[in-house]
This record gives sequence, C-alpha cells and structure tokens, in this order.
Amino acid sequence: MTETKTGQAKQTVSKSSAPRIRVGVTYYPEHWGKARLGIDIPLMREAGIQIVRMGEFAWSRLEPSEGRYDFSWLEEAVNAFGQAGISVVLGTPTAAPPAWFHQKYDVYPRDEWKRPLGFGTRLQRCLNHPVMRESSRRITEAMARHFGHNPFVEAWQTDNELTQNYCYCDYCAKAFREWLADKYGSLDNLNRAWGTVFWSQEYSDWEQIPLPWFAKCGMAHNPSLQLDYRRFQSDATVTFQQEQVNILRCLCPGQKITHNIMGLNDSMDYFALAADWDFAAWDNYPITPWGENGMRVPLGHDVTRGMKNRAFWIMEEQAGITGWEMMGPQTEPGQIRAWAWQAVSHGAETILFFRWRSCLYGTEQYWHGILNHDGVPRRHFQEVKQLAKEFGELSPFLSGAEVRSDVAIVHDADQHYGYHIQPQVRGMGLWDQILRFYTPLWRWGVNVDLVSPAADFSPYRLVILPGWYILSDEFADKVRQYVSRGGTVVMNPRTGVKNIDNVCVQIPLPGLLRDVAGITVAEYSPMAEKVGSVQFRDQNTASISVWADQLLLDTAEPFAWYRDSIYAGKPAVTCNDFGKGKAWYCGTFGDEGFYHIFLKQILNECGISSWDGLPKGTSVRTLYREGKRYTILVNLEGQEKQLSLPGDWKMLLGEQGLNTLTLKAYGIAVLESDRS
Amino acid sequence: MTETKTGQAKQTVSKSSAPRIRVGVTYYPEHWGKARLGIDIPLMREAGIQIVRMGEFAWSRLEPSEGRYDFSWLEEAVNAFGQAGISVVLGTPTAAPPAWFHQKYDVYPRDEWKRPLGFGTRLQRCLNHPVMRESSRRITEAMARHFGHNPFVEAWQTDNELTQNYCYCDYCAKAFREWLADKYGSLDNLNRAWGTVFWSQEYSDWEQIPLPWFAKCGMAHNPSLQLDYRRFQSDATVTFQQEQVNILRCLCPGQKITHNIMGLNDSMDYFALAADWDFAAWDNYPITPWGENGMRVPLGHDVTRGMKNRAFWIMEEQAGITGWEMMGPQTEPGQIRAWAWQAVSHGAETILFFRWRSCLYGTEQYWHGILNHDGVPRRHFQEVKQLAKEFGELSPFLSGAEVRSDVAIVHDADQHYGYHIQPQVRGMGLWDQILRFYTPLWRWGVNVDLVSPAADFSPYRLVILPGWYILSDEFADKVRQYVSRGGTVVMNPRTGVKNIDNVCVQIPLPGLLRDVAGITVAEYSPMAEKVGSVQFRDQNTASISVWADQLLLDTAEPFAWYRDSIYAGKPAVTCNDFGKGKAWYCGTFGDEGFYHIFLKQILNECGISSWDGLPKGTSVRTLYREGKRYTILVNLEGQEKQLSLPGDWKMLLGEQGLNTLTLKAYGIAVLESDRS
Amino acid sequence: MTETKTGQAKQTVSKSSAPRIRVGVTYYPEHWGKARLGIDIPLMREAGIQIVRMGEFAWSRLEPSEGRYDFSWLEEAVNAFGQAGISVVLGTPTAAPPAWFHQKYDVYPRDEWKRPLGFGTRLQRCLNHPVMRESSRRITEAMARHFGHNPFVEAWQTDNELTQNYCYCDYCAKAFREWLADKYGSLDNLNRAWGTVFWSQEYSDWEQIPLPWFAKCGMAHNPSLQLDYRRFQSDATVTFQQEQVNILRCLCPGQKITHNIMGLNDSMDYFALAADWDFAAWDNYPITPWGENGMRVPLGHDVTRGMKNRAFWIMEEQAGITGWEMMGPQTEPGQIRAWAWQAVSHGAETILFFRWRSCLYGTEQYWHGILNHDGVPRRHFQEVKQLAKEFGELSPFLSGAEVRSDVAIVHDADQHYGYHIQPQVRGMGLWDQILRFYTPLWRWGVNVDLVSPAADFSPYRLVILPGWYILSDEFADKVRQYVSRGGTVVMNPRTGVKNIDNVCVQIPLPGLLRDVAGITVAEYSPMAEKVGSVQFRDQNTASISVWADQLLLDTAEPFAWYRDSIYAGKPAVTCNDFGKGKAWYCGTFGDEGFYHIFLKQILNECGISSWDGLPKGTSVRTLYREGKRYTILVNLEGQEKQLSLPGDWKMLLGEQGLNTLTLKAYGIAVLESDRS
Repeated sequence: MTETKTGQAKQTVSKSSAPRIRVGVTYYPEHWGKARLGIDIPLMREAGIQIVRMGEFAWSRLEPSEGRYDFSWLEEAVNAFGQAGISVVLGTPTAAPPAWFHQKYDVYPRDEWKRPLGFGTRLQRCLNHPVMRESSRRITEAMARHFGHNPFVEAWQTDNELTQNYCYCDYCAKAFREWLADKYGSLDNLNRAWGTVFWSQEYSDWEQIPLPWFAKCGMAHNPSLQLDYRRFQSDATVTFQQEQVNILRCLCPGQKITHNIMGLNDSMDYFALAADWDFAAWDNYPITPWGENGMRVPLGHDVTRGMKNRAFWIMEEQAGITGWEMMGPQTEPGQIRAWAWQAVSHGAETILFFRWRSCLYGTEQYWHGILNHDGVPRRHFQEVKQLAKEFGELSPFLSGAEVRSDVAIVHDADQHYGYHIQPQVRGMGLWDQILRFYTPLWRWGVNVDLVSPAADFSPYRLVILPGWYILSDEFADKVRQYVSRGGTVVMNPRTGVKNIDNVCVQIPLPGLLRDVAGITVAEYSPMAEKVGSVQFRDQNTASISVWADQLLLDTAEPFAWYRDSIYAGKPAVTCNDFGKGKAWYCGTFGDEGFYHIFLKQILNECGISSWDGLPKGTSVRTLYREGKRYTILVNLEGQEKQLSLPGDWKMLLGEQGLNTLTLKAYGIAVLESDRS
Repeated sequence: MTETKTGQAKQTVSKSSAPRIRVGVTYYPEHWGKARLGIDIPLMREAGIQIVRMGEFAWSRLEPSEGRYDFSWLEEAVNAFGQAGISVVLGTPTAAPPAWFHQKYDVYPRDEWKRPLGFGTRLQRCLNHPVMRESSRRITEAMARHFGHNPFVEAWQTDNELTQNYCYCDYCAKAFREWLADKYGSLDNLNRAWGTVFWSQEYSDWEQIPLPWFAKCGMAHNPSLQLDYRRFQSDATVTFQQEQVNILRCLCPGQKITHNIMGLNDSMDYFALAADWDFAAWDNYPITPWGENGMRVPLGHDVTRGMKNRAFWIMEEQAGITGWEMMGPQTEPGQIRAWAWQAVSHGAETILFFRWRSCLYGTEQYWHGILNHDGVPRRHFQEVKQLAKEFGELSPFLSGAEVRSDVAIVHDADQHYGYHIQPQVRGMGLWDQILRFYTPLWRWGVNVDLVSPAADFSPYRLVILPGWYILSDEFADKVRQYVSRGGTVVMNPRTGVKNIDNVCVQIPLPGLLRDVAGITVAEYSPMAEKVGSVQFRDQNTASISVWADQLLLDTAEPFAWYRDSIYAGKPAVTCNDFGKGKAWYCGTFGDEGFYHIFLKQILNECGISSWDGLPKGTSVRTLYREGKRYTILVNLEGQEKQLSLPGDWKMLLGEQGLNTLTLKAYGIAVLESDRS
Repeated sequence: MTETKTGQAKQTVSKSSAPRIRVGVTYYPEHWGKARLGIDIPLMREAGIQIVRMGEFAWSRLEPSEGRYDFSWLEEAVNAFGQAGISVVLGTPTAAPPAWFHQKYDVYPRDEWKRPLGFGTRLQRCLNHPVMRESSRRITEAMARHFGHNPFVEAWQTDNELTQNYCYCDYCAKAFREWLADKYGSLDNLNRAWGTVFWSQEYSDWEQIPLPWFAKCGMAHNPSLQLDYRRFQSDATVTFQQEQVNILRCLCPGQKITHNIMGLNDSMDYFALAADWDFAAWDNYPITPWGENGMRVPLGHDVTRGMKNRAFWIMEEQAGITGWEMMGPQTEPGQIRAWAWQAVSHGAETILFFRWRSCLYGTEQYWHGILNHDGVPRRHFQEVKQLAKEFGELSPFLSGAEVRSDVAIVHDADQHYGYHIQPQVRGMGLWDQILRFYTPLWRWGVNVDLVSPAADFSPYRLVILPGWYILSDEFADKVRQYVSRGGTVVMNPRTGVKNIDNVCVQIPLPGLLRDVAGITVAEYSPMAEKVGSVQFRDQNTASISVWADQLLLDTAEPFAWYRDSIYAGKPAVTCNDFGKGKAWYCGTFGDEGFYHIFLKQILNECGISSWDGLPKGTSVRTLYREGKRYTILVNLEGQEKQLSLPGDWKMLLGEQGLNTLTLKAYGIAVLESDRS
C-alpha cells in the first residue's frame, strides 16, 4: 500500500455547530482539473454555496492501480474549498469500481439467468462477493486515514444510492443458504415455514435451495422464498455499508456519516440502513424523463425524515433538466427554488444541488447542472443565488425548527416486499395505499410522520396502517396496546393476511387484529379497475375500486355501506371502540371524496386541526421552534395563487396582501406566529 | 427400492357402475395433515362431495429420497375417503419432480437460448431426457403397485395439464434428429420436403439440423422445420404419457385412466394424447386474472367431449377467485353452480372443483378453494352443497344422457401449428375462425361436435372446415367423398394453401379442394383490421374484415359479392353442387350479421333446426336418453331473463312461469320432453 | 479446390452501352429447376423483362461441401437467360453461409449477452471473424473466376443488404481494441477523448475496454464508446465488402459492381460502402406488414442517388404482398407500376421486381412475386408488362436524363449514430428532422439532393443541415466558407453540441457555428409532445413541439418569436447575414404551416422556384436531358386527381385534358418541355 503524500491543510473552516439551512452542490474536481477550481470557487461563493460533495465516483483516480493510492488531487480540492469557507462531504467511491479491478476480479453481479452484468456503466459489483467486500473496506480505510482529520471534511457519504443487491451469482446463492441456515436452524424448520410441500419443493440439502433464478413458470417462485431472498439481499447491503461505517467511525472522529437514499425506492430496508447514519439524506428529482413525481416528492421528504426522525439533507436536488439518453423538461423560472423551500418546510436543513456544472462526457451529459456545459452563469445560477440569500436571512428563524406531527403512517420493507411479490390486484401497491391517505392530509396542511413499526406510537393521536399484509404477533400486540390505551388506528383491506413467513394465516381476517377491528372479513372481491360506490352514515356517497371486503360486524359499528355489487347493503367501513381507543377498518379503496369524508371524521374525532380551502398545488407545512411556529407556503405551480390565512402572523418572506396572501408562480411565503 | 408398509384398506366403497353426475374436489392431504381430515371429510359429506383427486404434486412426499417410497400417508387418506363413501382419483406426480432429483440429475428444460429453466416452480423437466423418462416410469410403477388394487381408487390422472414439451436442450436436439431420420429416411428427402435450398439451409449431416434456437433473424426459422419441431415435441409428450399408461393398464386393472387437458391449448396434439385415455377431462376456469373466457368455455367442453366422443369430466372446475400473484374477480352468487350445470349440459358427468380449501403457502395461495384459508364453510360451500343436491336429484334423468349433433367442426393440431407459425394476418387464428361459426350456432342452441379429421363424417349433415390450411391428399379425398355422397361442407379462406410439409402448393387455391369448391382463388387481400362489406343474394349486407379472396367461379354459384375495395362486384361467398352434396366457400370473414345470414341459409338447406330469440348470455343445450330429451338452460349472467319455450315439456329443475320461463341471475332450468 | 466444368456460353447478349430504363426481376433457378426455366423465360420475355438477379443466397448449391464448387446449374441459367436476351446480375452468396460451414466453424455473431445467433435463418455470421472473411474471399474468387468473362453477366451485387455488423463476440472485441489502438495511439489519448474519468471508467490496459455488452445500468454505456463502436462496426462491413470488390475488380473486367442497400437504414456509413460501387441500388418496399413508408420512399430514392450522385437501380422493387409470418396489404391495381415510375422520376434507370414468383418454401413464402405460387400469370404480370412496354417507349426520351437540384440536405452516419445513442427527446430522430424539410419541398416539386458532408456545396443555392449534432472543425469551416461566399444554410436545434468524440463542447451553442448563425443558445427546453406556438415576422402563427432553444441575438435578425412558454416573446427563428451569404437558425420544430412559411421565405430569397397547388399524394419530379425537361407526375393514391399545369409541354405518357391534367388512380404522366 503506497500513498502520494500531499501537504496537510493548515487553515480550518469555521464550523459552526449550530444547525443552519444552507445550499451546496456536487462537484467533480477530477472532471474539471485544478485550473477550473480557480474559476468555480469564486462563482460558488458568489452564489452562496456553503458545502460541496465530492469523490463518490472517483475510485479510478483515488486508486489508479491496485494498492497505489493518490489522494493529492482530492486533498487539493478539499483544501481549496475549505479555505474558501466551503465545507466538504466525501463519498466512498464503491458504486463504480475501476476497470483494472474488474480485469483482475470477476465481481460482476448476475441476473436471473446468471448472466454477468459487466463493465461500462456503474454498480457492476455484487455486494456479497468477498473480494468486493474486502476492496470496499480497503479503499474506505485508505480514504478515512487520509481525510479522517481534515478539518474541512464535515461528513461522509457511504457509496451512492444503495439499494438491494438483486444479484443471482453463486456467491449470493452460497450466502443465501448460510443466511437461511442461520435463520431456520434446520431444513425441517425451513420446509415447514415456507410450506415447500407445495409442488414438491421440499429441500433435503441446503445446496438444493435456489435463488429465484429464472424458472419454468416465469418468476412464480414460492412467495416465502421470495420474501426471504429480499430480506437476505437487503441485509447484504446493510452489512456492506456497516463495514464502511465501522472504519469511518473509528478513523474519522468528529465527521458525520450519512447516505443518499432514493426516496421511495422500496427494494430494501432503509430503516436498517439508517441505523448506521448520523442523519438521513435523499436524492430529490421531482421531474425526470420518466415523469413527474408529484405527491411522491413531499412523501419522499417525510419518508426520509422518518429514517432518523430529525432534520435531514437533500444530497442531490434537481438543478435543471435531467436525463441520460432522453431528457425531461426544462425547469421553469423559480421552480428549483420552490422545490428547495418545499424540502426545508418538511424538515430539510442542507440542500445540495446536483450538479454544479453539466458533465461534458459519459452517460450523464444531459443530467444538467446549475451551470451548463459552457460554464456561463445564467438563469439557474441566479435562482440558486437568490435561494442561498434567503436561506441566510431566514436561518436565524428556521435553524433547528422541527416538524411535529399528530399523525403517523407506518410502513416497513416487509410490507413493500409483500405487495411486490403478490400485487394481488392493480392499484394496491403500498405507496398507492399510503398516498390515498397522505394526499388529503398534505392538502389540508396536516403534518404526517412516516415511521417504522418499531417507532413509539404514544406521541401520535392517529396511526394509519396501510394494508399491513405481513403481520407479526409482536406488531399486532403493539397495535392492540396502542388502541386500548386510547389511540386511534386505521386499517385497510389485506390486513393480517400473512404471517411473517409470507404464509396465509388459518384464522379469519383481519387475522391477529380481528378483535381490535371488531369485524370479520367473510369474503372479498378484487375489483381492480371496476368502479362501485358506498354510502356513508351522513348519506353522502363516494366511488370505490381496487378491492372490496365483505365485513361481518362483530363488535364494530358501520360507518359506510356498499351500494352495489354482490355486497350491496353490507358494511364497507367500520369503527370499533377498543379499550380507550378506536379502530377504523376500511374494507375498500375510495376516490378523493371518499377519503375526504372518512379522514375528516377521524381527524375531528382525534382533535387534529386541518386546513380547508387551500388552492391546489400549494404546499403548507409548519415547523416549530422555541414557542414559535413557522408556516411555510410553497406554490408548486406556474400560476399565481390567492389564499386567505387566518390568525395573527408576521411575514418573514413573501408578499403580503391586505386580506389575502398572494403566491406568485412558484412563490414562497414564510410566516411566523406564536404557537397556539 | 424400499416401501413403508401401511395397513391395507378393509372396506370397499360402493362403486356403482352406473354413470352418474356428481361433484368432487381436489384435495391435498400432504398440505393439511391427518388431523384436518377428520374435519374435512364430514364437511365434504355435508356438501355432497363424492370424489376427490389427490397426489398429483406430491412426489417429494411419495419418494422423499431416491428409491425410498412412502405411500402410507396417501393410503391413509385414500382409505379414509373411501370408507366415507368418497372415491379417489390419483395423479402421477411427474409434473413436479422433487429437489433431490434435480440436485442429482440435470433434467431442466432449456429455452431458445439453451438457458436452463430451473427449480422453484413446476414443470422443470424435459420430457425427452432419458433420466426423466425412467424416473417417470419408476414412480408410476411404484404407485401403481401400491394402489392398483385399492378398491377406493376409481381412476388415475397422468401427470398434470400436459402440453407440448417446448424444450431446446441437447437431448431434444438429438431426439429431434432421430425423429426426422425416422420420418424422412434420408437427408435428401428432408432437404426436398423442407425446401432447404432457400437461404442455403441444405443439410449434409443430421447433426447440422438445429432446433428452432434463437437465430439472427428473430425466430424466422424455416416453417417446415417449425412444423416438424411441433409435431416432434407433441409426440414426446404423447410417448411420455404412454409409458405411464402402459404401466397403469398392466398394474391397475379395473381403474380408469384419464388426463386433465387445458381446454383450448393448442400447442400439441390432444387427439393423440387422448388415444390412451378411458375418458377425457379438462380444467375449466371461466374467469381468471387474464380475462374472461366467454365462448371458450362451451367450446372447451365440446372440444374435450370430442376427444373421446363420450361423457367427460371436469377435473378442475373453478371454485372462486383464481390467480397467482394477481387475482381475478370474485365469483358472483350462483355463478359456480351455473358453470357446473353448463358443463353437464355439454355432456360432462363428473365435476371436481379446484380446490377444497385455499392453499396456505406456495405459488397458488390465491387460487381459491371452496373453503378459504380460514377453513370456515361460507357462501361457496353452500353453493356446492346445493349443486350436489340437484345433481343427486336429477341423476336418474340425466345419467347416461348424451349429446347428439348434426354439425361437426373439424380441427387438428397441424392446422393450429400452421397458424401459429404463420398467423399471416391478425384475426385469422384458428380458434377465432372456429368461434365465428361456433358462436352463432351456440346462441341458436344447435349442438356441435368438435372432431378430428379422422372422425366419421357420415352422421353429420354439415361439416365445417375452418381454414384447413395444411391439407393432405387423404383428407382432401375424404372431404370430396363426404360431399359427393350428399354432405355439406363449409370452407374458409386459406384452405389448401400448404402440403403436409408446410410448403405452398403449386396449384391454384383452394388447392386439392378446388373441384369440390368449384372456384379458383385468383388473388387475395389481407385486410387485417380494415373493414369492408358484402351484399348477399337477398340484398342484405354485412361487414367483413381480416381477409378477402378474389374468387373465380368455375362451377360454383355466388351467394355474396364484395361491395367495395379492389374486388368490388366480385363473388365473396359461393356454393357449389358437388355430387349429391354441397360445398360452400366463404372467401372472407364477416361480422355477426354475416354469419347469421350465411349459416341460417346453410342450416335451412341442411334441415337443421335452430332456436331464435334466446336472450343473450343464455346457454341452451340438449341431451338425449332413451326416447327422452333433456333441455338444460343456464343463465350465465347476473340479470334475470325471460324466455318463451315452445313445445310440451316438464320442468325437472327451475321456476315455471305461465307463458314464459324465468331464469333468475345465474339460474338453471332442466326440462324433459319427448324426443321429437 | 475442385470445380464442376460446364460448357462455356457460346452466344453473347446484345449489351448496349447506352443507359436505358428497363424492368428486371430476381430469380432463383436453384428453387425451380431447369425444366421451369423453359416456361419462365418465355413468360419473362412476354412481360418485357430485360435483366435478372441471381445467386445471392445459393452458397449451399455453389459450394456443396468445403472446396467443392458447382457452378454448372447457375451457368446454365445465366446462359439460358443471356441467350434469350436477358442479362444477369450475380450476387455473392455470403449473406447465408451453408450448414456444413457452420458445423465446422463457429462464426455465429453474438448478441449483447454474447449468446450465439445460430443457424436456421440468415446473416448468421460475424464479419470480423477471420474464417468468415477468408471464406467470403474464397467463394467470391471462385465465382469471379467462373463468371468474370461470361458475356451475359452485366454486374455483381456484393452480399445482400449489408448493414452494420452489430456483433459482440470476442473477435469483435479484439478487433475493436486494435481499431481503437490504431485510432488513438495511446490509452491516455483514449481516456481523455472519451472522458472515462466519469464513473471511474479509465482504462489502464487495452484488454479492459468492453464492447457495449449488457451492463448493470441497461445499455447506458459511455456515449463516446458507443459512437466508436458504431464506427468500428461500420468499418468492418466496409472492409468485408472491399475484399470482395478487390477480387471482382481484378477478375471481372467489364462487369459492374453494386450493392443493394436498405434505403434509410442508418446503422452504418453507406457513403463509405458506396465508394467501392460503380452505381448505387436499393431495395424499395413501400408497404409492408410493418406499415407504409410514405415519404420515406422518395427520400430513399434521393438518398440512394446521393450515394454516387448518378443514376441508380432498384435492386428489389415490391411486386405485391410482402411479409414473412405476417402479410402486409395487397397492392392495388396500378400501384406497383406507379411505384416504378416514381423511382424513375427520382433518377432510377433499372428496376428489378422482387421476385419473379412467390417462393414455395422457407421464411419468405409470403413475400409475393409477380407470379404467385401457382405460377399463373395474372394481374401483377399484366401490370409489369404494361410498365415494361412504357419504359421501352419512353427510353429514347428518358435514358440519361438527370436530376438537377438547387437544394442539398446534408447527412452522415455520425449524425445518425449520435441521435441513436442519445435521442434526447421524442421526435428528434434525424430522419424525422430531415423529413420536416424534405416533405414540403417534395410537395412543391422541388428537387433535392441528399449529400454527404464531403460533397461540393458550391452548385447548391441552399444547403440544409438538419441538427448537425457532432460537428468537426473541418465541417464547421466548410460551412463557414460556403456561407461567406454567398450560400444559404439552414440549421436546426442541437447544432454543434458535440465534438467528434461525442463529448459536449465547452463553448456556447451552436458551438463552432455560433458566428455563422449569429446567435447564442442561452438555454433550451425539451418539449417532446408538448405543443407551443410561434409568430412569424408577417404575423402568421404556427405550432411547434419537440424542442425549443432560447436564442440570444448576437448579429442575427429574428424571423419568428415564441408566443408562449417560458420563452414567450423571445426569438425562435433567426437569419444572419454572414459574408455574402445567409445563415438561418431554426430553434424549434414546427408543424406543416411552420415550414410552409419558413421554407417559402428561404426559397424565394434563394430564387428557387416551387410549385403550389399540387393535389396531395401526387409526386412531381423533373429530369433534364440535352436541353429538354421531363416532368414526371405520379398519382400515388387510388383517387383520380385533377391538376392544372402551367407552361408549354408535350405529353409523352398520360391522358391529356383541355385545361387540366387528369391523373387516374395510380396514374402517370410524362411531359416534355423546353428547358426554361
């Protein structure tokens, strides 16, 4: 192991320990060379950039050949930024191992047909391969030793956009079998848990257990095997990161650790990945060539905040047109500023735009930066500059301000896996289920936390369990206790269908929560796109689709009834008093009006206030700090909007009207008021 | 070879040799264990279940390791059912070999890229693999020796849902070349027959002949090779079954043999497979996640009956929601009963619902049974119970009653293959061609037989040949003789295009049947979705599409003329007197009105009575027995229907009105009248 | 090497060296045998056939086993045709090597997963495989030696429909690395040129460089590698042909060499391929099962003529229904004659229909010939006969008549590759860009040349550069000089984005042509299907979509302005005086009306006359010869059309009206007038 020595940094950047909202960028010094740093740093300072991320794809420059490291160029850049008052996040470069490495070691992942997924793009490595693991530790350690005490390095990002290691190589097969042996102890246990007697799949030797390789009947592998495969590969990613984190914790005292997740990616257990971070971060691209993310943007913020339940970062924030070989649309004037403010209103404190300047070469030539290829500061530069200025001005008010929620939506990886393995019917995907609740709550300005099943439910007045399909005894007990002590829960169809092995329970649905719900599902009707309707207790009606449970009332009261289909006249939504609390069971999926009636009733009963009459496309979130309340309004659309705002408030940002508040196209308003 | 001994059955079930209509189920004792048998058998008796199918996926329990058999658990179940008066169908378990077998032997099928289709679902075996063949014989023999004299075993089902062995492994390649050598004798003959001179494909060594592996120009292999490949792989399946049948015939005297085909699957020659059965059976799923089968349900019944031309079974009848990872719709009240009665009206005598109870684990968790996962008897249980009661009450009338038809539609595997290899134009698939004739005949209550080209045509007044594309000399002669002796045939476009090697004939179309049809096809116009129209002799007009032949009248008379396109004014449908009979040639494909005019004319000329004015969605079939006639009406829809029924009849089942008959939603009526 | 000797031809066909328009066919003597020649040759003579193409798929008959040649049958056919006054084009048979060859040598191409694309169709060979190369030379040499002095052989066709050798085998990998080493000299140069520092793709050993094999992130390989891979594989095809041409030139003096390209196929550099031909030819199928080619037919003629800038052939002209397993529509009466005349009007001189008679066997059974399978001359025969008669009558006028154009559209393979690698946004494909200009010019009867960037621009008044994405210094200079000396150019969005390594330039767009265009692209908006509008200087408005550049005026004048979107009020189309010429920059893509206004303005300014008021679906082209002007009008549709024709002309073919000219369905008119 050799290393090119470079001068140690002499100066230190002023590192205020106070939280602050600020703007940063991703920067690739290896793309632009030293000379351009002299142009870019002053430009960044002019724009108000306070932090840069670097290094996460630079393995071939950091270790040009095996065991020969060169950190000089990176250190020069780190120091140059630091000395200019811009702090640094360093990425471990393991998302793109270099060509010499792949020439020597075949760590390529394999697809369902065991075909290698080779060199030429990125992510071409199996995280279960022992050589990949060892190399990841080596490069991490070398970087950590070099930069672990650099005063300008504020934090580390592990790898890049980690997801599940969907690989089908022989190393994975071996590791999977060991993981299973460890979990089940014996093949008898495994055969019983998975029900392998079905279709003669009983295993008499661990070596017989396949990965879900391409098989005769498409991918119709045993659902229990599929669930464990996902859990196993999620664990692989978690362990891979853990090995990097262990090194960084040891060698980089005083530097934080995080990772940039991909928002609503649900291929792995992000909660488990998050256990090793100091704070959460995600990559936020509201509009890409693949479509607009719409409600998935605020949901992504809340999901990310839910990882650590504290302020989070946007590690990559959209800076303009995105795309690889196809481009998405251009951002409109003010739009990237609006997205950044929206992030802050959900609890983000540091926002790094991706990227400083559009890359000249490679796959991401058209994933545009704040500057375009020609390097000339134009519109996007001005928008970022304005944003940084506003962040600076409002930091004294908003730094450390927190989101507080009365409502929690619970989700976890097992539920996501369950619906991926068996979608059952179109429209029942877990994010879709969540969005049916989340969207009206968002529209009404109600703060919502997205929490794991391990979270403490006691602070919440309302806990929503969207289709809790794979239900453990422990979680059922936790819900039972929460309700019995006065909490309110909402359940969806398909609650309690499966045990934790993805095997159907032999008791009537909703399974282990039948007593809490106070109903029995007699039978059910997958509706998919078919549309039906229900009538509520107040005589209002609404449309339904996707699914309909036929409910027998055990102890519950009906709140809505089917109006048509074979279940006409039978209860569709029920409410059960259970202990000191209430359990709502919603046996179907409704339209907007459905959830308006249903959720308003629940919010009222729970004493949670909500906000009617907000113009569509307007985000309203509230942060709290030291007896003050900060309401942040963001117009996410290109049309000006008027709204009237009750109460007594002071406008910190925005244009104040007489009786109404005006939000220009993509306009922002930040209001301060006393906590009520 | 070792075997766990179990007590021999002491009692015998009363096995009436009289035909009877009855209800059964598929049951998996290996899934539920002995204890549950004590609950399920009484419940089945309450429901009126008289027969169960078992064992067809239980290889891993029947032979837990190589050569070690354990039939004890199955025998216990067989005897328990038998002693309760429920007889048993046993399946050979070869559709899902166990894991230990695949660990030792690589019998996995290969796809077009020679990729193995591995373990984890089912059907993961190549039927041409010598080890698979041998293992199939061994397990069959072991089961046959054990159960061949068990008094409760009424019949055997070979394997499960056999179709063509679309495998591309080296064993298949070798077997294919041997099959070809056997068929053609010499490469010269093969080269000549296939026309391999095209694109320099002449073979000078048998080893050069490929399977239709993935090639440079997609799958555009020589159509003659493609046809022979399909025939070869169909033969492989037939031989595979034959080997099991030979063993069962020898060791299980007094027990019947059958197989559960997949209705309209057309990947192999079911007529050849049927040669080894005592009776035919099929798996009937009218509504699945992949859509509604509609007219394919009654057609499936008639196709299956046509296999042996006698009463058949439904080996798997839909019991509720079907699906794997996606679910189809719930069945409506009365719907599964209506489907069962519909089957009886087409000549089915035993109907086994699939399955008794929804499976807790594995791929088919959501292929629902009469009971759901919780095992509680509910609506579907009551519907089956009612059905079994009705079957019991009407058995004295309907047992042994037969379908009799004046109309035959001829089809065979070669024609299906021909259109699969070269669809030529959208809308000309062979089942589509058949359904254009079958659907109006069904609506009018006209019984139809679906027969093989080897069938005796003399009992039929009308023989329909839908697009007889690959035409042998022998079959052309047979048709010629049938017509010349007084029969009526109907031909479609593409008749006689090919010889039996899938090579185009050098004579004008309709080729070998040109004299019978009395026309010459001058040229043709593939229309696909384009719509045109024709005018009939009676001035009525109708729409056409898909295809148009330009017909030159040799001896035929025109019956309809094109009204537009480049063939405007030229004959589209003709009728030719040939010998004592008549040959209709229909040069195009029409809409509903087209076939109404066309077929009514033919039925009238043939003296075949039909029934007008039946409400849509109503099935009317007639069975005959000992001078009596049984008309079975089934309302296949959820709306009540009224119809008036001429003649003098006695209602055996249903609600009698004054002047009209009422069929409730999914209602049934069975009427007895004297044969007229 | 042995050869079956056959008698040498004794007679010679009269080979007039004068150019002439004539009709031919493709004929496969190996399919039909000697006997049928005696029927077909008289029939061809009756039809007026003057030339046949043969041999291009006959390798298995020409070399039945390795090194044993048999040219006797082909020679017999050549001589029989020749003696009947029908001359011959021979194809080298390398597009379909025989089975014995593949049994001995594995020259199968590999796909992105390295899977062999095996035997059973055609094109199953990698052109980089040394054995394939050698075999190609051997069979070519053997044929050339045999037929090189045969007086009836007029020309040779190399291989068949050559395109790029998209193969991913190890031979290709090796050859690619050598090609790169040759091009870049060092890995440092390559790494710098490609920007491999992106995603750690730097290469330290030539062996590390992958082909664009299937990789983890789909096919998102480095765009620079992708461009060089396409260039490399194009070169492979060019070299492959060159080796055949070298042999033919040497051994076949007096015989011409050509190749049948696939019109608008853009997978390789056809200009480079054309360098070795005597004249160009293409295969023209206006209507297939995959759709109608519409404007791609005349464009294909002009593209092909542009290959050698002189009269070209149609080597395969549609003779009726086309298709493999699916068929396209039947041709209407007169339609194949109209297509042939259309070809002539674009400068074609010899038109060979494909094929004489529909093939009885193999993949192309339904690619219909002039005669169908039954060999009976019917409608298509009569149409060809009429055509040949007309060609004969008009040859004295039209032989040697030439297309002359004032307008050139420049295209080359690099631009095509560039848009394939990065389409950027739907609707911006290069042919689409070209057709937006070409279509209105075609409608107005304006002759257009499609030329390479190496062409002499000086004869043209207007040069259109449709989206010249990959721009070299040399070409930018050439354009600059052309304009400065008085030429007019039109540019599109995305001009000058990339250097020749497919790397983005660091200067503002349109890059190297910014001075010529006199504008700067400040930013851009990918619109895809979104629709906007512009207003022209004359107040007219038009719709736009696909893309919008925001233009800053440096020295240019605006000609149109955006009316909406974020660029409302800003220039959309500009015109810049540069030297003695003019440069138009069109920052967006418009509808029909847009180009009407835009192009009419330019034509007027350039003094290029155009023709208004032609009925849609009517082709008008003009040929010039010795002071005369021949206007050929073709009605491409089935409806009769009227048009009034100014000027003084003599009708050589067609029906003359009093004041108007009538074109019957698929009718033709040929008019002679004095050159004005």
